[in-house]
Amino acid sequence: MNFAEKLDGAIERNNSLLCVGLDPDLGKLPEHIKNIVNPLFEFNKAIIDATVDLVCAYKPNSAFYEASGVEGILQLKMTCDYLRKNHPTIPLILDAKRGDIGNTNQGYADFVFDYLGADAITLQPYMGGEALEPFLTYKDKGIIVLCRTSNLGAGELQDLEVSGKKLYKIVAENVSKNWNKNSNCMLVVGATYPSEIAEVRQIIGQYMTILVPGIGAQGGELEATLRAGLNLEKTGLMISASRSIIYASNGKDFVSAARTETQKLRDEINIIREVM
Amino acid sequence: MNFAEKLDGAIERNNSLLCVGLDPDLGKLPEHIKNIVNPLFEFNKAIIDATVDLVCAYKPNSAFYEASGVEGILQLKMTCDYLRKNHPTIPLILDAKRGDIGNTNQGYADFVFDYLGADAITLQPYMGGEALEPFLTYKDKGIIVLCRTSNLGAGELQDLEVSGKKLYKIVAENVSKNWNKNSNCMLVVGATYPSEIAEVRQIIGQYMTILVPGIGAQGGELEATLRAGLNLEKTGLMISASRSIIYASNGKDFVSAARTETQKLRDEINIIREVM
Repeated sequence: MNFAEKLDGAIERNNSLLCVGLDPDLGKLPEHIKNIVNPLFEFNKAIIDATVDLVCAYKPNSAFYEASGVEGILQLKMTCDYLRKNHPTIPLILDAKRGDIGNTNQGYADFVFDYLGADAITLQPYMGGEALEPFLTYKDKGIIVLCRTSNLGAGELQDLEVSGKKLYKIVAENVSKNWNKNSNCMLVVGATYPSEIAEVRQIIGQYMTILVPGIGAQGGELEATLRAGLNLEKTGLMISASRSIIYASNGKDFVSAARTETQKLRDEINIIREVM
Repeated sequence: MNFAEKLDGAIERNNSLLCVGLDPDLGKLPEHIKNIVNPLFEFNKAIIDATVDLVCAYKPNSAFYEASGVEGILQLKMTCDYLRKNHPTIPLILDAKRGDIGNTNQGYADFVFDYLGADAITLQPYMGGEALEPFLTYKDKGIIVLCRTSNLGAGELQDLEVSGKKLYKIVAENVSKNWNKNSNCMLVVGATYPSEIAEVRQIIGQYMTILVPGIGAQGGELEATLRAGLNLEKTGLMISASRSIIYASNGKDFVSAARTETQKLRDEINIIREVM
């Protein structure tokens, strides 16, 4: 089963387009978790167990683990292993935003796909599709390329016009026409830019999934995002939220608070899908 | 002492513009190193000790360590610690090509600058200067931004023309004019494109250093590179080579072979500098 099939299965089974970002920042964890052994892992495990029937995927961001060095990477691996062993039908995306020349990318692919056993990775487009070949050849893995990012200054390069067409649209075109030979590519477009999501959906057609960060703490608007990005089957989006869920409470009730927020956001998404 | 000063000191003391890439691929190491404890670190240590009077910097690429998971990251840290402790005047650049939104980049900065203690990092420009602020605020560290990369397909995005100007030139302009408020930015331009190095030098002026990968295994031409990129003081370039040096021999003589290749390339660079 490839990543797209695994993702579709989870979307259908859990009736959810919600992807939860596992981005534990040691300074923001509940006090009773901060000082135990493997706090990042234990926090993730609690969040996973509380939300696993409500999500379509989990997305740990590598930076939050690297910040703790070897101890952090170990807990990232423990998180990946835990999910794969206990909830094997829920896909895991490593949000790593990697990109290098070809022979070097193989090292990153070894880390993400072989060592961690992740189902998908996010990548930088700047070096071109040729550089990303070592990733693109993994037919069963999801190769999720940054197109239009959710940050305030994203437009500095991404909105530059090339023959009247913005750079992020060229990335969308190139990925969908040329990089996607193994039908394993997806794109990242931030929720903070709903009109850009609509334009990207038009470029890539019905079948490619868009990963949408920026809902929640970053302030992206949910309804506009869904109207812009859903395909005709009312799917084709992964709505990613992290801080608004995992830090819903930083007290002893963080698990139930995270579940409540996850359910709320999943249901909000589904209500909008139903009336469309 | 900031990164630029540390680099200038090493360039002068060792009369060298050569940066050696510490990119140990377990499959390519000499047989007698492969099966010892911490082979990546022991290989690096041997290369460092054999070449430390001939280089201006070392540049481990994160991917080659991540490929071995926690064990690899540990050996990357051992390499950084070893250099800092035993050769504190030689700077270390982590070639990580990272880039994410602001709050997430802080995690990468914690990893590279605080945990590993590296002097500089390479970064992706696609998300814009605003996203890279957490890195740019480290005044003493080198922030080395990808401009024109050395890979065959680099032009797919980097050569796109925006109002008659190629994208990599806009990156060079934006970095030198806007991102460099703390005078800590440098650029990456591959040796495989000497005319692009000349154009970038013209855009950024005399004082910004260009990191040039692609000499050696990737086939970049040395003389054309130096003529294109040196500033008026015959410096302002770091010429990076990895495979041609660290794999000069894969027998028991790999240390002396690496030293011979390092000395040869450093001297070739200096002969060209002298006649210019």
